[in-house]
Amino acid sequence: MSKSSTVTARERPVEEVATANAGGLTIHGETLVVHTEERIELVDLTNDVMEFVRRFSMREGLVSLWSMHTTCSLFINEFQTALLIDIKRFLEEMVARDADWLHNNPEHSDCDRMNADSHLRALLLGHNLTLQVSGGEVVLGQWQRILMAELDGPRARSLRIQIFGIS
Amino acid sequence: MSKSSTVTARERPVEEVATANAGGLTIHGETLVVHTEERIELVDLTNDVMEFVRRFSMREGLVSLWSMHTTCSLFINEFQTALLIDIKRFLEEMVARDADWLHNNPEHSDCDRMNADSHLRALLLGHNLTLQVSGGEVVLGQWQRILMAELDGPRARSLRIQIFGIS
Amino acid sequence: MSKSSTVTARERPVEEVATANAGGLTIHGETLVVHTEERIELVDLTNDVMEFVRRFSMREGLVSLWSMHTTCSLFINEFQTALLIDIKRFLEEMVARDADWLHNNPEHSDCDRMNADSHLRALLLGHNLTLQVSGGEVVLGQWQRILMAELDGPRARSLRIQIFGIS
Repeated sequence: MSKSSTVTARERPVEEVATANAGGLTIHGETLVVHTEERIELVDLTNDVMEFVRRFSMREGLVSLWSMHTTCSLFINEFQTALLIDIKRFLEEMVARDADWLHNNPEHSDCDRMNADSHLRALLLGHNLTLQVSGGEVVLGQWQRILMAELDGPRARSLRIQIFGIS
Repeated sequence: MSKSSTVTARERPVEEVATANAGGLTIHGETLVVHTEERIELVDLTNDVMEFVRRFSMREGLVSLWSMHTTCSLFINEFQTALLIDIKRFLEEMVARDADWLHNNPEHSDCDRMNADSHLRALLLGHNLTLQVSGGEVVLGQWQRILMAELDGPRARSLRIQIFGIS
Repeated sequence: MSKSSTVTARERPVEEVATANAGGLTIHGETLVVHTEERIELVDLTNDVMEFVRRFSMREGLVSLWSMHTTCSLFINEFQTALLIDIKRFLEEMVARDADWLHNNPEHSDCDRMNADSHLRALLLGHNLTLQVSGGEVVLGQWQRILMAELDGPRARSLRIQIFGIS
């Protein structure tokens, strides 16, 4: 049984900026870097995503947001200090950091981050969001915010954002 | 520390109906309103989504379903009365309604709905689905149903549905 | 109260292969069958999805992966033997197989698979992924693998994979 994780290798790394146009359809992708300061931290990305979409004056379409990391999640919820504390507490209670996880055991794992809890918490939240664009803006409810969950920080996290639609 | 939640404001509200066409690609979005009667209720939206897709005679593409609320989720599962009762029980057991959540504490939160449990349950289920359309119909397995989880009803809930593809 | 589950019926079953082209946009879908050998099993589909995408020399776009089953999930995580054992243990601890679920009770359910736990575990992981394609390849981080969770095997599982974009 190997202690190592499988590496995912593209033939070429993801380019910083990539665009394609055909028959009125535009696809445009970029990388967004977010710096975190805590081990578990919830970051509000809503304004970044809204500004990205407005920049393209795309009328109708989709915008995809993808976390490039296994221990960094994306999800929708309300942004209120009290609720963010509840969410962090909930994640910590759902997955015990100090349980006897094999991923944290040097006999079975060559990962020295001891972050099994981060992987399992990410499992619950997921790694991507596919949002609608309509009337030139992201479709979101009044209390919905696009949140990133840093689950093993502090780190610099790369997110890929891609817009896809008709101008 | 603010007791309030951040509000998401588009420059214009989402329009009831929005369409764009270019080079054989069609994008069409609408709002669907669902009225619920219980605090926690599971609603089967499969027939609504199937009828929406059939209405556009779009051959291949995607259909995105988005809940406009933080405490109303969308997910896939089997629709059977016994299993729905199990799902509700599971959600109630995973997140205790009466735990000492800060979001329910007037000292820390100006939300008077006392619905921290609803926010945390929605975290587990997610707020959107992006389904495939093929041969003019939604791609779903024999036992798969598109379900909405009302987690803080009764309420009127808005869902946005957008179809995206080639006729 | 019916003991049966609602069946989802398309007018025609999903075709093995479906393609549409218009104005430089290509949409192509296929079915992928995965055979599992355990009741709970985690399968790495990354190479299959990467090869599918490379086959179409599509430059920018999206690729959607959809599990056609209620008890078979798709998610992103790291692929390491120790961590996979932790993920299985976590799913087993989060949802007790032998709790008194109604779906497993012949008085309330005509399902003879006794698999309420499988349905509830799938609820946590979800049934689909919508990934970005850029520069002709799937956008994934170095440690991200596309994983399928068999939650009620052994079975033959059908996944639908659809690519959508500009060549």
